[in-house]
Amino acid sequence: MPDRTPLSDAAIHEALDDLEGWTYEDDKLKATYEFADFRAAISFIVRLSFYAEEMNHHPELENVYNTVSIALTTHDAGGKVTEIDVELASKIEEFVWT
Amino acid sequence: MPDRTPLSDAAIHEALDDLEGWTYEDDKLKATYEFADFRAAISFIVRLSFYAEEMNHHPELENVYNTVSIALTTHDAGGKVTEIDVELASKIEEFVWT
Amino acid sequence: MPDRTPLSDAAIHEALDDLEGWTYEDDKLKATYEFADFRAAISFIVRLSFYAEEMNHHPELENVYNTVSIALTTHDAGGKVTEIDVELASKIEEFVWT
Amino acid sequence: MPDRTPLSDAAIHEALDDLEGWTYEDDKLKATYEFADFRAAISFIVRLSFYAEEMNHHPELENVYNTVSIALTTHDAGGKVTEIDVELASKIEEFVWT
Repeated sequence: MPDRTPLSDAAIHEALDDLEGWTYEDDKLKATYEFADFRAAISFIVRLSFYAEEMNHHPELENVYNTVSIALTTHDAGGKVTEIDVELASKIEEFVWT
Repeated sequence: MPDRTPLSDAAIHEALDDLEGWTYEDDKLKATYEFADFRAAISFIVRLSFYAEEMNHHPELENVYNTVSIALTTHDAGGKVTEIDVELASKIEEFVWT
Repeated sequence: MPDRTPLSDAAIHEALDDLEGWTYEDDKLKATYEFADFRAAISFIVRLSFYAEEMNHHPELENVYNTVSIALTTHDAGGKVTEIDVELASKIEEFVWT
Repeated sequence: MPDRTPLSDAAIHEALDDLEGWTYEDDKLKATYEFADFRAAISFIVRLSFYAEEMNHHPELENVYNTVSIALTTHDAGGKVTEIDVELASKIEEFVWT
C-alpha cells in the first residue's frame, strides 16, 4: 500500500521526472490530456475510474470536449501530495496511450 | 434544432423554474449532482455523454468522488446561455434519477 | 471474502428467493435487465463493472440495444455457482434501479 | 447515410478485405477483440457505444473479462448484412487501437 505521508518537494520533483506532462501546483499533481475527441476522453475517464476505485483514491477530474484535466492530492494527508498520488499518476501514464 | 441565439436574463430565469437545482452564474447554467458513490457518478457521466454527443453540445464537467458539476454555455454564441443549454439541462433532469 | 466452494442446488434456490428476476441454468446464475434505452444499458454496464473489478469476478455480459444479460459462474470452482456469484448478483440487484 | 439494402456475398467478402479480424457468419459481421484487461475492454465498449448511437445502429455485444465480441447485422433488412454494418465495423477498426 502506498504511503500517505506528505512527500518533500524534492521527492515530488524527482517523481515528476518520470511523469511526462505532469506538474506540481497548489499542493497537487496535475496533468491535462488531450484526446482525439470527446468520445475518447470519456472512455479514458471510465478506464481511469477503475484505478481510482482500486486505490480508493479519487482524483479531481475536469472534462471539456476532448480534454481531461486531473488533479491529485491526498485529503487524508491534509491536502498534500503523497506516494499514492504519484502511484496513481504513474498508472495513468502507463495506460493512457495504449 | 434548438436556437443558438443568446437568451435574455428573463428567459433564462423562466427556464430555471423548471430546472430544479440549476443556477445561472457567469453566463452559464450550472448544477451539481451528488450520487451514492463514485461509481454512480461515473456511470452518470457516461449516460450524460450520449446526450452531449447527440446535440454536439459538450458541457464543462467536474467530478470529485460522488459529485458531478456541470456548466453549460454556448461557445458559438460568444459564451452565452442559449436554448441548447436549456435543452441539455432539461434532458439531464429527465434521466438523472431514473 | 465470499466462499468459492460450489453451492448445493438447494442453497442456490434459496439464494434465488432474494434475487428477483434471476434464474439458475447451465450452472450459471442469469438475469436479463431491460432499460429505458441503449444509453441507460451502457451506463449500467459501466457501473456493474466496478463491482466486478472489486470482487475480481467478471460476469459474462451481453448487450443488445436496451437489454443487458448477465451470466455468473465461478471458473475457479470448475464452472459452478458459488457464494461469490450470489454476492455479485445481490449487489447488482441493490443498485440497478437506483 | 449508408444504404440498408442487403449486400451480396461478393460485396461482403470484398468489404472484409479491409476489415482485419472480421468474419462473415450467420448473416452477421463478427469480430472478437482482446484487450489488456477488463478495464480496457469496458472503456472500449463505452467508446464504441457513441458510434452505435450516432448511427442508430446497435451491435450485439458480448464481454467476458478482457474480450469483447461484436456481431453486426441490420434488423431493418431482415437480419442481413448491409452497408451500415460495414461502416460501423470500419469505424471500430479505425479507433480500436488508438
